[in-house]
Amino acid sequence: MTTLALENIEEIATTLAAKFKETAVARDQAGGNAKIERDLIRESGLLKLLIPTEYGGLGGDWAEILHLVRIFARVDSSLAHVFGYHFVNLTTPHLCGSEEQKIRYYTETVQGNLFWGNAFNPVDIKLTATKYADHYIFHGKKTFCSGSVDSDYLLASALIDGREEPLLAIIPTKRIGIEVKEDWDNFGQRQTDSGTVEFHAVRVELNEVLENGFNHNEFSRLRLNISSFILNHLYLGIVEGAFEAARTYALTETRARSPIYTSATDDPIIQKHFGEFFAQVEAAKLVVAHSDELFQKLWHKGSDIQPHEREELDYATNVAKIVTTKVGLDVTSRMFEVMGSRATANRYGFDRYWRNLRTMTLHVPVDTTLQELGRRVLQRLKG
Amino acid sequence: MTTLALENIEEIATTLAAKFKETAVARDQAGGNAKIERDLIRESGLLKLLIPTEYGGLGGDWAEILHLVRIFARVDSSLAHVFGYHFVNLTTPHLCGSEEQKIRYYTETVQGNLFWGNAFNPVDIKLTATKYADHYIFHGKKTFCSGSVDSDYLLASALIDGREEPLLAIIPTKRIGIEVKEDWDNFGQRQTDSGTVEFHAVRVELNEVLENGFNHNEFSRLRLNISSFILNHLYLGIVEGAFEAARTYALTETRARSPIYTSATDDPIIQKHFGEFFAQVEAAKLVVAHSDELFQKLWHKGSDIQPHEREELDYATNVAKIVTTKVGLDVTSRMFEVMGSRATANRYGFDRYWRNLRTMTLHVPVDTTLQELGRRVLQRLKG
Amino acid sequence: MTTLALENIEEIATTLAAKFKETAVARDQAGGNAKIERDLIRESGLLKLLIPTEYGGLGGDWAEILHLVRIFARVDSSLAHVFGYHFVNLTTPHLCGSEEQKIRYYTETVQGNLFWGNAFNPVDIKLTATKYADHYIFHGKKTFCSGSVDSDYLLASALIDGREEPLLAIIPTKRIGIEVKEDWDNFGQRQTDSGTVEFHAVRVELNEVLENGFNHNEFSRLRLNISSFILNHLYLGIVEGAFEAARTYALTETRARSPIYTSATDDPIIQKHFGEFFAQVEAAKLVVAHSDELFQKLWHKGSDIQPHEREELDYATNVAKIVTTKVGLDVTSRMFEVMGSRATANRYGFDRYWRNLRTMTLHVPVDTTLQELGRRVLQRLKG
Amino acid sequence: MTTLALENIEEIATTLAAKFKETAVARDQAGGNAKIERDLIRESGLLKLLIPTEYGGLGGDWAEILHLVRIFARVDSSLAHVFGYHFVNLTTPHLCGSEEQKIRYYTETVQGNLFWGNAFNPVDIKLTATKYADHYIFHGKKTFCSGSVDSDYLLASALIDGREEPLLAIIPTKRIGIEVKEDWDNFGQRQTDSGTVEFHAVRVELNEVLENGFNHNEFSRLRLNISSFILNHLYLGIVEGAFEAARTYALTETRARSPIYTSATDDPIIQKHFGEFFAQVEAAKLVVAHSDELFQKLWHKGSDIQPHEREELDYATNVAKIVTTKVGLDVTSRMFEVMGSRATANRYGFDRYWRNLRTMTLHVPVDTTLQELGRRVLQRLKG
Repeated sequence: MTTLALENIEEIATTLAAKFKETAVARDQAGGNAKIERDLIRESGLLKLLIPTEYGGLGGDWAEILHLVRIFARVDSSLAHVFGYHFVNLTTPHLCGSEEQKIRYYTETVQGNLFWGNAFNPVDIKLTATKYADHYIFHGKKTFCSGSVDSDYLLASALIDGREEPLLAIIPTKRIGIEVKEDWDNFGQRQTDSGTVEFHAVRVELNEVLENGFNHNEFSRLRLNISSFILNHLYLGIVEGAFEAARTYALTETRARSPIYTSATDDPIIQKHFGEFFAQVEAAKLVVAHSDELFQKLWHKGSDIQPHEREELDYATNVAKIVTTKVGLDVTSRMFEVMGSRATANRYGFDRYWRNLRTMTLHVPVDTTLQELGRRVLQRLKG
Repeated sequence: MTTLALENIEEIATTLAAKFKETAVARDQAGGNAKIERDLIRESGLLKLLIPTEYGGLGGDWAEILHLVRIFARVDSSLAHVFGYHFVNLTTPHLCGSEEQKIRYYTETVQGNLFWGNAFNPVDIKLTATKYADHYIFHGKKTFCSGSVDSDYLLASALIDGREEPLLAIIPTKRIGIEVKEDWDNFGQRQTDSGTVEFHAVRVELNEVLENGFNHNEFSRLRLNISSFILNHLYLGIVEGAFEAARTYALTETRARSPIYTSATDDPIIQKHFGEFFAQVEAAKLVVAHSDELFQKLWHKGSDIQPHEREELDYATNVAKIVTTKVGLDVTSRMFEVMGSRATANRYGFDRYWRNLRTMTLHVPVDTTLQELGRRVLQRLKG
Repeated sequence: MTTLALENIEEIATTLAAKFKETAVARDQAGGNAKIERDLIRESGLLKLLIPTEYGGLGGDWAEILHLVRIFARVDSSLAHVFGYHFVNLTTPHLCGSEEQKIRYYTETVQGNLFWGNAFNPVDIKLTATKYADHYIFHGKKTFCSGSVDSDYLLASALIDGREEPLLAIIPTKRIGIEVKEDWDNFGQRQTDSGTVEFHAVRVELNEVLENGFNHNEFSRLRLNISSFILNHLYLGIVEGAFEAARTYALTETRARSPIYTSATDDPIIQKHFGEFFAQVEAAKLVVAHSDELFQKLWHKGSDIQPHEREELDYATNVAKIVTTKVGLDVTSRMFEVMGSRATANRYGFDRYWRNLRTMTLHVPVDTTLQELGRRVLQRLKG
Repeated sequence: MTTLALENIEEIATTLAAKFKETAVARDQAGGNAKIERDLIRESGLLKLLIPTEYGGLGGDWAEILHLVRIFARVDSSLAHVFGYHFVNLTTPHLCGSEEQKIRYYTETVQGNLFWGNAFNPVDIKLTATKYADHYIFHGKKTFCSGSVDSDYLLASALIDGREEPLLAIIPTKRIGIEVKEDWDNFGQRQTDSGTVEFHAVRVELNEVLENGFNHNEFSRLRLNISSFILNHLYLGIVEGAFEAARTYALTETRARSPIYTSATDDPIIQKHFGEFFAQVEAAKLVVAHSDELFQKLWHKGSDIQPHEREELDYATNVAKIVTTKVGLDVTSRMFEVMGSRATANRYGFDRYWRNLRTMTLHVPVDTTLQELGRRVLQRLKG
C-alpha cells in the first residue's frame, strides 16, 4: 500500500467509481461477493481514510466519507454500502468502547488494511452472549450482516441476561465458530453480502467487548445516527445516478413521441418531468447537506455534546431520510416515463436504481420514522 | 385434445394458473421461452376459446378471454400477455381481413391448435413490403415481437410504398426467411419473448395480406382498442396479484413494528395503507369493467358500430389504462412498506410485480394517453 | 302544489339548478339561510319524490334522489346537501321506526309539503333524553344540525341512561323549547344551516320516538349508509361542477402561456392536466355508481337483507367516499393551474368548490374510513 | 419617526406581527385596504430598512427583509406581500436606473417615509408610453397592481414603440391622471390591493424613467429574481403559519377519533401527517435558505456578477418556488385532516392559508417554471 495524500482522495474515488461502473450492471445481475472490487477498495488505501493520522490513518473527516459514499452510490450502491458501513463499524469502538479499544482498532485497521463488516442488527434477537469468568460465549445467528463476507472484523451485538441493551463486541471474522453464510439473495443491494452469520459457541475476550455501549453519553448515542447518514447518502447517490442516467438516455436514445418535436427532450411534458426531478433532487441534497453539517460539528465535540444538539441532529437526519426516500422512490420509478420502453433492456440495468433503493429504504420503515418524528414535533410544543 | 365445455373454462384456467404459480418466480429469474407452460396452454384447449363454434371453436366471448388474462396475470403476467395477445393476433383477420380470411384462420387455428405471436408493432418502421405480380416480399426486422418464439403464426405489419397505413399480413412462423431471434432480455415481462424477428426476403402470398386494414370501418378500427383491453387486464391482474401477495405476507410474515401491537396488521398505519390499496384496486376494477362492457357490445355489433360508440369506448379504454397504470405503479412499489425488508428476498420474487408493470406500462407512454385524452375532452366541448 | 309526473323530474331539477346557479356565488359569500331557494324546492314538489305513491308521494327511487343531489351539487352544494339530507331524515322512521310511524311521517310530509332537518349527529353527546311516565324530556344541544333553520321536522338523537345506542326521535321544529340558532358560519357549505339547535326541556311524546333504532335489523342499519351516499354524490357533484367550470374557463378565458400556442388549451401540459382530471372523475363516477346499484337493490329487499350484503355495500360506500374525496381535493385545488391567476376573482367564486368539499369531507375523517376499511380487508382474509 | 437601531428590528417586526394577527381573520374577510396596518408599518420605520445608511436608511440587508416577510406572512400574507414588494419596487431604481436615480429615490423614501406600490406586471400590455420632446405620456391601464392603494410611489412598466423591453418609470401615485381603482376582490391575498391602476395621459418626466432597464447587466437582471425571493418567503411563511396553527389546534382542540387514544395527537395516523408536514416544511426552508445565500452574495457583488452566477441563482430560486408551492398546497389543504370539521369555522379563518397560497402561486404558473427548469437542465448537459 502506497502512502496517500488527502488531496488525491476525490480522484482515487472517481477512478474507482469509473471501474465499478464498467461491471456494475453485470455484477448486479450476478449478485454475490464483489471480491475484485473490494480488493480494489483495499488497495486504494481508502479504508483508513477516517482514521486519525496519529494512528497512521489519513485523518479524513466524515464529510469526505459521505462524499465518497455518494460517488460510489451513483454507480454501485452495493459497494457504496459496504464501504460506508466499514466506517460505521470501525468507529464503534471509538464511540462505544474505551480509549484503549479505540486506539487498538484504529491502529490494527491501518496496519492490516482491514475491512469491517457487521453482525449487528439490534432488532435481530437470535444471537446471545453468556458471560464466563474471563470471557463470553456468543451463540446463535444474525441476519442482514452487510459486508460480512470477505471481512476482517465483525461488529456484533448480542442479547445478554440482566441487561436491556445488547452487548457489543468486535470479533475477527476468522475466529473459530463463526460461519459466514453467503446467502444474501435479495432483489436489491445485491453485492452487499447482507446475509446470515452463524455463531457456534464463539469465544469472545473481555477486551473485545465495548463496555460503554450506545448509551454511555451523547457521543456514544451518535452511533445510532451514523448509520442513518450513510444510508441517506446512499439514497441520494442512487437518485443522483438515476437522474443522470435518465438525462443522458433521454438526450441520446429516447425517440420523440410526436413528429411535432425534433427530439424527445423538446417535449414539454418530458421537460416538466425533468423539472420535477431536478427540484426534488436539489431539495434532497440540501436536507442531506444540512444534517451533515450538524453531524460534523458534533463528531468533533465528542463527549461535550448536549442532548438538545443530538436531538436537533436526530430531526435533521430523519427529515433527510424521509425526503430522500420519497424523492428516490418517485424518480427511480418515474424515470422510465422520460426514457420509454426500450430503456427496460437488461443491458442498461436501469431498474437496479429502484430495486436498490426499494430494498435499502425498508431498513427502518419510513412510516415509523414519520410517525416518530410527528410524535416528537407535537410533543415539543406541549413541553 | 379433448373436447372442452365452456362451463369448465374457469376451472381449467385456475388449474393452469396454479401450475404457473409454482414456477413463476424461478421462470421470472430465468427469462426466455416458457415452452412447458405454453404447451400446457396448448393442451388446455383454451387457444380456441374465442373462436365461434361454427369453426370448431369454443364460442367464448371477449369477457372470458379478459377474465382469464387476469387470472393468469395475478401469478404470471408474461403468460397472461402471450395468451391475451394470441387472441389479438388471431382476431385480426376477422377485424381487418376478408370473410374468407376470417374463416380460414379461425378454422386452421382450431385444427392445428395454433398459437399466434406478433411482428406487428406499427411504431417500428424497419420492416418493408414490396409488391410483385402475385406476391409480396417482406424484408427487414421488427422488435417487441411478443409471443414470437414458439409461435405458429405471426401477425406482421410492414411499410409499403404509396400507402400511409402499414400492410398487415399473416405469415407462418416457420416460413423460409423468418428468423425469430430469442433476444428478449428486459427486466419485466421476461417470458413474453418480445424480441426481434428478422425477415430475410420473406415471400408473402396475396391471400395472406389483410387488405381491409385498420381503417376499413369502425369494426376494423376496434383492432386498436383490443390490445389496450388486454393490457389493461394485464395491469389489473398484476396489481391484484401484488395486493393479495402483500395481504398474505403481512398477515403471516411481517413482524409488528412496535410492541404495542400484537401483529403487524394491528398497526393503524399499515391498515391505512391497505385501505388505500383496496380502494384504488376497486376503482381500477370498475373502470376496466366499464370499458369491457362497452367493448363487448361493440364486438357483437360488428360493422354497425357508430363512430360515437367507438369514441366512447376509446375514452373508457384510456381512462382504464390511466387508472390501472397509476394504481399499479403505486401499489407494486408501496406494497413493501407493509411487508418490510425481509420481503425483498428473491425467493418471494415480489419485485416482479413492479418490474412487469413498469415494463408493460411503457408500451404507449401514459403521458401521451393523458395528453391526448385531455385534448379530446377539451375539444369535445368546443365542438 | 301541482301534481308532478315522475318523467318531469329531471327537467324540474335542471330548471331549479339553473336558478340556483344565478345566485350561487353571491349566496356563498352571504352565507345564512337560503330561504328563497328552499321555498323553490318546496314549490317544486320534489320533497315528496321518494315517498311511495300509496302515501301520496311521487314514488321515486333513491337513484333519482341521488341523481338530483348531483345536479344541484354541481352548482350549489349547500342546497344539494339540505335537499339530500331531507330524505335521509324523512326515511329514518321507515328504517328505524314502526310501520305506523313510517306511514304517519310519509303522509304528513306529503300533506304539509314538509322539509326535514336534523339534530342528529351521534358523535355529539350534549343532548340527553330522560324518560317519564308517558313522555320524554330532551335537554341539551346539538351542533352540525344541517337543514335545521326553516325546517318543519327535526330528526334528533339523544343519550339516554341504560342504553348504549342513542334514542331517535322526530320532533316538530316549532315545538316549545327548541331554539334553532342561526349560527353556522364556516368556510364551506355556507348555506346548509349546519349550526346549533338547543333543546330547553323539550317534551317528546312516546310515539315520536323511533324504538327500533339503528340496530333492529340489516334494513335499519342501512340508515348509517344512506348519509354516506348523499355525501358521496355531493362530493362527486362538486368535482363535476369544478371540472366543467375549469374546462369552460380554460377554453374561453385562459391566456396562452407561450406564444407557441394559439390558445391555452393547445398547451400539452394543460391538456395533460385535463386528461388526469377526466380520468379521475370518471373513476369517481364509476365507484359511486357501483355503490348506488348495490344500495338500490338492498333498499327494496327491506328486512330480507343479509349481513354479507350490507357488508358489501359498506365496502362499496367507503371506497366511493375515499375515491371521491381524493379526486375532489385534487381537482378543486389543481383546477387553478389550468385557469391562471385571473380565475381567483371573487366574481367567479371558483374557490367555493374546494371550500365546500374541504368542509364536507371532514364529516367522518377519511383517515378513519381508510384505516377501518384496511382493517376489515385484512381481517376478511384471516377469517 | 424615531431612530431605529438594527438590533431592534426583529422585536419591532414581532410586535407588529402580533398586532396584525389580532385582526388578520377579520381583515381577510373584509378585504380592501389595510390602512391602519400600513400606517403601523410606516410608523415602525421598517420601510427604510434596506436603504443604505449613507442615504439615511437603516442599512439592513435582504436577509433581514426576507426574514420579516416571513414573520409577517405567518399571520398575514397580504401585509407581508405589500411590505416585501415595497422593497422590490424601491430598489428598482438602484438595479435598473442611474446612480442619480438610485440616490434620489433612496433619499426621498427616507425623508418622506414613503410606501411603494406597483403598476408593473410586464405580462399586462395595456399600458403604453409615448415619447415627446422632454417627457413621456403614459396611457392605458395595469392590473394586479399590488400595494397601489395608499402608496406614495408607483413603479410602472409600459410598452413603447421601437423597443422590445418595456419602459420602466417611477411615478408619484398622486400625479394627475393616475386613478387607483380599489377593485381587488379575489379570494386570496385580500388586502394586497392588487387591483387596477388607470393612467389617463399621465405625464412622466425623463428623469423618472429608468433607462438601463432589466437587461443592462447581470445586476439589473437580478430584478427579475428579487420578486421571486419575496414570493418564496411569502409561500414559506404561509405554510409555517399553517403548520403552527394546525399543531396548536390539534394539541388543544381536536378530539380523539377513537377511545383508544387519550388525545387526538396520540393517534399514529395524525402523528404521521405531522411527520410529513414537518419534513416537507424543513425541506422548503432549506431550499429557500439556499437561494437566499446565493442572492445575498450577488447583491453585494453588484455589476461584477457573472452570468453563470446569476444562472445558478435562477436555478435555486426556481427550485425554491417549486418546492414551497408543492409543500404549501399540500399542507394548507391537508391540515384539516389533523384538525377535524370544527376547524372549518370562520372564526379561525384557517382556510385563508390555502386561499392566500393558491392565489399567489398562480403569479407565474408553476408548470411554466417546471418546464423551463427541465428544459434548461436538459440543455445544460447537451452544451
